[in-house]
Amino acid sequence: MEKDKVRIGITHGDANGIGYEVILKTFAEQEMLDMCVPVVYGSPKVAAYHRKALGLSTNFSIIDSAEDAVAGRLNMVNCLDGEIKVDFGKSSPEAGKAAFEALRRVTEDYRLGLVDAIVTAPINKQSIHSDDFRFPGHTEYLEQELGEGRKALMILLKDNLRVALATTHLPVSQISSALTKELIEEKLDILHKSLKTDFGIGAPRIAVLSLNPHAGDNGLLGDEEQTVIIPALKEMGAKGMLCYGPYPADGFMGSGNYRHFDAILAMYHDQGLSPFKVLSQGEGVNFTAGLPVVRTSPAHGTAYDIAGKGMACEDSFRQAVYLAMDVFRRREREAMLKAHALKPQKMAKYEGEDEKLNLEAEEDDV
Amino acid sequence: MEKDKVRIGITHGDANGIGYEVILKTFAEQEMLDMCVPVVYGSPKVAAYHRKALGLSTNFSIIDSAEDAVAGRLNMVNCLDGEIKVDFGKSSPEAGKAAFEALRRVTEDYRLGLVDAIVTAPINKQSIHSDDFRFPGHTEYLEQELGEGRKALMILLKDNLRVALATTHLPVSQISSALTKELIEEKLDILHKSLKTDFGIGAPRIAVLSLNPHAGDNGLLGDEEQTVIIPALKEMGAKGMLCYGPYPADGFMGSGNYRHFDAILAMYHDQGLSPFKVLSQGEGVNFTAGLPVVRTSPAHGTAYDIAGKGMACEDSFRQAVYLAMDVFRRREREAMLKAHALKPQKMAKYEGEDEKLNLEAEEDDV
Repeated sequence: MEKDKVRIGITHGDANGIGYEVILKTFAEQEMLDMCVPVVYGSPKVAAYHRKALGLSTNFSIIDSAEDAVAGRLNMVNCLDGEIKVDFGKSSPEAGKAAFEALRRVTEDYRLGLVDAIVTAPINKQSIHSDDFRFPGHTEYLEQELGEGRKALMILLKDNLRVALATTHLPVSQISSALTKELIEEKLDILHKSLKTDFGIGAPRIAVLSLNPHAGDNGLLGDEEQTVIIPALKEMGAKGMLCYGPYPADGFMGSGNYRHFDAILAMYHDQGLSPFKVLSQGEGVNFTAGLPVVRTSPAHGTAYDIAGKGMACEDSFRQAVYLAMDVFRRREREAMLKAHALKPQKMAKYEGEDEKLNLEAEEDDV
Repeated sequence: MEKDKVRIGITHGDANGIGYEVILKTFAEQEMLDMCVPVVYGSPKVAAYHRKALGLSTNFSIIDSAEDAVAGRLNMVNCLDGEIKVDFGKSSPEAGKAAFEALRRVTEDYRLGLVDAIVTAPINKQSIHSDDFRFPGHTEYLEQELGEGRKALMILLKDNLRVALATTHLPVSQISSALTKELIEEKLDILHKSLKTDFGIGAPRIAVLSLNPHAGDNGLLGDEEQTVIIPALKEMGAKGMLCYGPYPADGFMGSGNYRHFDAILAMYHDQGLSPFKVLSQGEGVNFTAGLPVVRTSPAHGTAYDIAGKGMACEDSFRQAVYLAMDVFRRREREAMLKAHALKPQKMAKYEGEDEKLNLEAEEDDV
């Protein structure tokens, strides 16, 4: 195996969704195969079924172990013992089991040092749910399995738009009680470190959204801004972090003010993801920051409604592969710089670092 | 006064914001003046100050009462006794008082039948707050003053994108308990009637967003979908309403699936407004449905950050004036049709009414 290429472990996700379609389409180009060493964790039989059904021509090579993976081709490790029937657009227990098995295997191989980074195709949460997998998603599973005690942070990104979530898969009724000063500080800390290490931004600027509409209108519409968010911002600001807010989500995202920041910390799932998905138009990528392992995924789901129809667009998946390579490389360089440092390295000053921002725009009553 | 033109009562809003700027810019065009009879409720002195400071050339005519309003020019009723100092971008008690006074006067004149519809320029909620005005916004004030017992519904719209809010100015911690089956049915009913009467849509299709992320993932992430939203949808569906959902907000808005519907009912403020503001790019309009009075406003705030700089864009305000005229005319026609009906009028069938929609797309773990 060529040591100079990043080995990407790719899980096939739900076999009845668009996972294989976006994987096969992404690696239809030889340039993609030459850029990294892709290792798909799945089922050659299922892959062949999808390939035929969709009329795709991507070839893949079956290997016994990720150790045998070779650059220049799409390597595939068989994770399944028995047969599995593909039923496009349907949730099935077999597909759920197969999705979990791929995830388990790539986790194992990552621990053994056989892959450098992980890209996951979408799973179906109903079918994967079992005694082995009681997580709301990949993020939480990988946090437990490969976190080494560190906490994960979900970041959705497209180009320079990066949206991180303070809380993820929570009922709306539980958001307020889950938000503590400590939690926001923890998430800001992970985000800040990730922006520096994973994205190479010297002095990242972070915008924090408010929990309540109109940022609580000075306490008229909720007090979490005063009691939780602002104190957390003050504390992190005092430590030198360039973090600002809390900004009302609608005005902040709608006005385009987010462009002045390297990342946005949203307080909850839909607050961050709704505007993000509108802005990213299907090209977003999900990145799990904070963990030792680099893991990315496309920002779409199994898309059962178009599974097996050849209509799935692989852009998001391709971006997920690019991002996994990029972040892995940046972390490698960072680690090398640190190891070889004779004196403290001054990071390049971030462009516009001293520029004053005026974002005190008033929101109206809508 | 020409009876064939809609008389629009316009409140000047906060005198330190961009209210006068967007009003004067909107009525700089003679076409706008010929289209309706605009009556600004404000202060000629303050208007003159803004006009000069911004280098605008829009003329206006001071009138004693809305009774004297004339088409073809910008009529202005003085609502202020004393002086008021304009301080661009600053909240002041005098400006708050002046904003309330204009609102009070237009309400009074509406009751007297001197104006047909109301367009409000943005207020500053801090400064307008007083013993007379203890409302989170215009919507709630007008509901009390001119509602005649009917309930208001906020709809934000741009072209065919219409987003209504089941709850409006509530802390996030109170959303879940405020959402009841009855409330959603009530809001759906107002929305449905408004789409028919105010927008002339024969058989409107309404999409309802879920409260929780991933529409609650079948109860894993909250149960309001099962206990509140779905029962409300079933009940309204049984009555013949074309209402669908609940859809996860992020996937629904991000995928563009909202285009299949005439309106979207969001469960709370930021859920509806964040994607709306991203999509409408400053051209959105706020419409208060459900009340006997037609009231619209631009979907932006006082914009203190750019007040007095001549940078404000009047598009949203102009659209608000257009919409007020349109809705008033549609209601007039509707009332006339009903009054003169000899037999039940069959509405034109809505295009694509029978078309099947497949929106069962699965959401992933992001």
